[in-house]
Amino acid sequence: MSPMPALSALEAGGGFASESVGYGKVDQSLVAALSALVGRDHVRTGSEIAQALGFDAGTRHEVPRLPDVAVVPGSTAEVASVVALANRKRIPLTARGGGTGLAGGAVPLHGGILLDLGRLDRILTIDCRARFAEVEPGVKTLTLQNAAREQGLLYAGDPCSNDDCVLGGNIATNAGGNRAVKYGVTSDQVLSLEVVTALGQVTTLGTRLKKNSTGYNLVRLFVGSEGTLGIITKAMVKLRRLAPLHPDYLVILPDLVAAMTLVEALADDRFLDPITLEIIDRRTVAAMEKLKGAPIFGRPQGHVLIVQFEADSEEEVQDKAARLKQRCADVTCLGITRAGDSEEVWAARRTWAKALHEELPVSVGEDLVVPVDRLAEFIGRMQGLLERYGLDYRLAGHAGDGNMHINTVPGHVPLEHWQDTQTRYRAELYQVVYSLGGRLSGEHGIGLKRKKTLAKLIDPVELELMRSIKRAFDPNNILNPGKIFDLA
Amino acid sequence: MSPMPALSALEAGGGFASESVGYGKVDQSLVAALSALVGRDHVRTGSEIAQALGFDAGTRHEVPRLPDVAVVPGSTAEVASVVALANRKRIPLTARGGGTGLAGGAVPLHGGILLDLGRLDRILTIDCRARFAEVEPGVKTLTLQNAAREQGLLYAGDPCSNDDCVLGGNIATNAGGNRAVKYGVTSDQVLSLEVVTALGQVTTLGTRLKKNSTGYNLVRLFVGSEGTLGIITKAMVKLRRLAPLHPDYLVILPDLVAAMTLVEALADDRFLDPITLEIIDRRTVAAMEKLKGAPIFGRPQGHVLIVQFEADSEEEVQDKAARLKQRCADVTCLGITRAGDSEEVWAARRTWAKALHEELPVSVGEDLVVPVDRLAEFIGRMQGLLERYGLDYRLAGHAGDGNMHINTVPGHVPLEHWQDTQTRYRAELYQVVYSLGGRLSGEHGIGLKRKKTLAKLIDPVELELMRSIKRAFDPNNILNPGKIFDLA
Repeated sequence: MSPMPALSALEAGGGFASESVGYGKVDQSLVAALSALVGRDHVRTGSEIAQALGFDAGTRHEVPRLPDVAVVPGSTAEVASVVALANRKRIPLTARGGGTGLAGGAVPLHGGILLDLGRLDRILTIDCRARFAEVEPGVKTLTLQNAAREQGLLYAGDPCSNDDCVLGGNIATNAGGNRAVKYGVTSDQVLSLEVVTALGQVTTLGTRLKKNSTGYNLVRLFVGSEGTLGIITKAMVKLRRLAPLHPDYLVILPDLVAAMTLVEALADDRFLDPITLEIIDRRTVAAMEKLKGAPIFGRPQGHVLIVQFEADSEEEVQDKAARLKQRCADVTCLGITRAGDSEEVWAARRTWAKALHEELPVSVGEDLVVPVDRLAEFIGRMQGLLERYGLDYRLAGHAGDGNMHINTVPGHVPLEHWQDTQTRYRAELYQVVYSLGGRLSGEHGIGLKRKKTLAKLIDPVELELMRSIKRAFDPNNILNPGKIFDLA
Repeated sequence: MSPMPALSALEAGGGFASESVGYGKVDQSLVAALSALVGRDHVRTGSEIAQALGFDAGTRHEVPRLPDVAVVPGSTAEVASVVALANRKRIPLTARGGGTGLAGGAVPLHGGILLDLGRLDRILTIDCRARFAEVEPGVKTLTLQNAAREQGLLYAGDPCSNDDCVLGGNIATNAGGNRAVKYGVTSDQVLSLEVVTALGQVTTLGTRLKKNSTGYNLVRLFVGSEGTLGIITKAMVKLRRLAPLHPDYLVILPDLVAAMTLVEALADDRFLDPITLEIIDRRTVAAMEKLKGAPIFGRPQGHVLIVQFEADSEEEVQDKAARLKQRCADVTCLGITRAGDSEEVWAARRTWAKALHEELPVSVGEDLVVPVDRLAEFIGRMQGLLERYGLDYRLAGHAGDGNMHINTVPGHVPLEHWQDTQTRYRAELYQVVYSLGGRLSGEHGIGLKRKKTLAKLIDPVELELMRSIKRAFDPNNILNPGKIFDLA
């Protein structure tokens, strides 16, 4: 939500007050103990704590929720000792990576210790033969992408915030991004994790095996657990061969529902085997071009579908382009061109939130996901609902994997009715999403922002299983408490 | 282990006695209550219980451990009501699918209720557009494979016991099989699960999405949990396009370590993109041919590598065969031929346990897995260890995914020293496997058979996390107690 209501409002009636009961206090003796563990230079209190640590990219319009103390450990052993201390003293502890999260996951809701993982920023290994990297959680995604590229390899994870986000955060939210159509999401890249448990113990989970039936799979449980089950201190991730060419084609389409039918066909085309199928609606395109002050996607104007694929040669590019054109013949297209400047296209794609915010400051953003074969139906039903409520929207979606970023905007609805109207509309929209086999968050996570909504949508039995894992792993509820779900 | 020591010996010093304390008794009133839930015809006691329910394919040489009552529910609701009753009365409950498990996972170690899922054997949906199937847990893997093939689709999971094993068991053990090189293991096929929790509640976990950051991933936790966390009552699994051609090539090799270097190169060849890379050592080949009484793999004799790949046309087959021959030029090969009769080759592969047992009744079997790029090193070090201990081996492995089935046999070791020698050898072997990033079980699971070994190899922190999930999901420890790990 942008602007979101203040956290206090968001959490009204939530578990804040009751869950805070029983937590220990951050006092001078705790600060001294933390300083002894990580060094005084790496412990900040009071005015030393940057205001930016009180919010993330998704809650920056809120009143910040500052921690009582910020700690910047320099090793796994230091992380473990800090967490063990927090557990003994029952101090809430929230891990923070790049602060680029969009769901408030890194906000220290209950104060306590903010664990800034920024010093754990080393790439430890790049193995070119077996194609994997070992990284610390504070390595920027772009840094790993670049280091892999220098070896002719690809790190496939690619959130739009890749120049600021870090791998620990990507893993904590199971971040998706632009290349999931071909390569999957962060969980598809992660082979192994070193984690510090809530008790301050260190263990390494998983290994780089295709087959493994040796007990429960805990790696996949930690990926996407948003810092509530343990602290990731190291990760082994897959690298892949980097294809010599990966051109972008821009398909201009007059009709969004028909565009989604095309997306389904392209996502399913084994020969084309697209990396990316990104849709940007016509008016979002206009906002991006206005922000830049120049055309980006060429003419004529319409909804833009960015199609990226791999090729070993220019001949293969032409063969695949021919297949793309053949597929596009099944729908009405206004144009199909190869992007002259891919960097410009992707830089524009990464500006979407900013471009929209300049044009339409009042909006509410979604990270919905539905099966690709239900996308056309979803968009049609969403448009019907919007019309009924008098609302409007802008959209930039990872269409090829069904993950739709949609900003709902007031449209014909007067601002005094906006909150109520969008609330009722979204409740109906989520019912549509779930009825199609979709879910609330494709890649941003639940954090604070979607916690109450999730509580309404999730099967109570599933929720209770999740809660029971949280209680089992973190009996004192110190790790990022109040995120994803409330315990009470 | 074949023959394995009797369960009582296997479990001596284990948690059996202590964990049995506190369980309720199966008496006439419980049998009456179960009969009311599922119908008297579907409840068996005493001599009505087939002896076969007391062991699985991996423990059939043991004294059977029979349940007190066998229940054959006909619906999810019936499963839920039976589990709820078992939980209220604290009766151990073990689910059973095809009984083809090799680790004792379906053996009702603590007696109580055996939940036979054989009546839940319907394929509910095959969706050709979105390519998925919905199945009940008692559907045979082969039945689903055949039903998919009729629609031009592939169910990629393929354990060697495919004509007897069922999907519920495949999911419970995260079964692997022959096609994991290209398609992955069972967890890579599973989209969604309906499960009955230990409290007898029903929930559906997961959905068919590429991206999902909506809370913890519980689907992947249930896959491979061997019936200890809940009962799978329905599954949605991926189907794929069925390639028109999938020829098998037989590569005959004189040296096993060199064969593994070839396997690494082939597994990594993007153009060949093999489905299967199966290795069978020379003497196992001889045993298979002796069992059949005829040559199967052609001449000259040597270690056999079965290479299967997909092709759309005979032209593509020839192109890929040329690539295969090119790769094989890097090692000494005795021959490369296209298998005339693929069915015969795979039928022989599926006889390996029988062929070996006829020749070498005293043996101990492994399901080890290492990264493919460490296979050559693993085999070399294993051969060194075997020589040092005077032991011998036979091998039939899913080499392309690093999963090695190895039968250790006495060799030069007198039978009176066999138990002690193989125990010491295996302890060293497992250290090698773990040092290479490998694990104890690639696809069979831990069950009873590997529980004590796992306890020695696993990091205690990881084990405690697993145990804590078990305690959280199943507070009365009724679901398949004593499998994978002991709680106390």
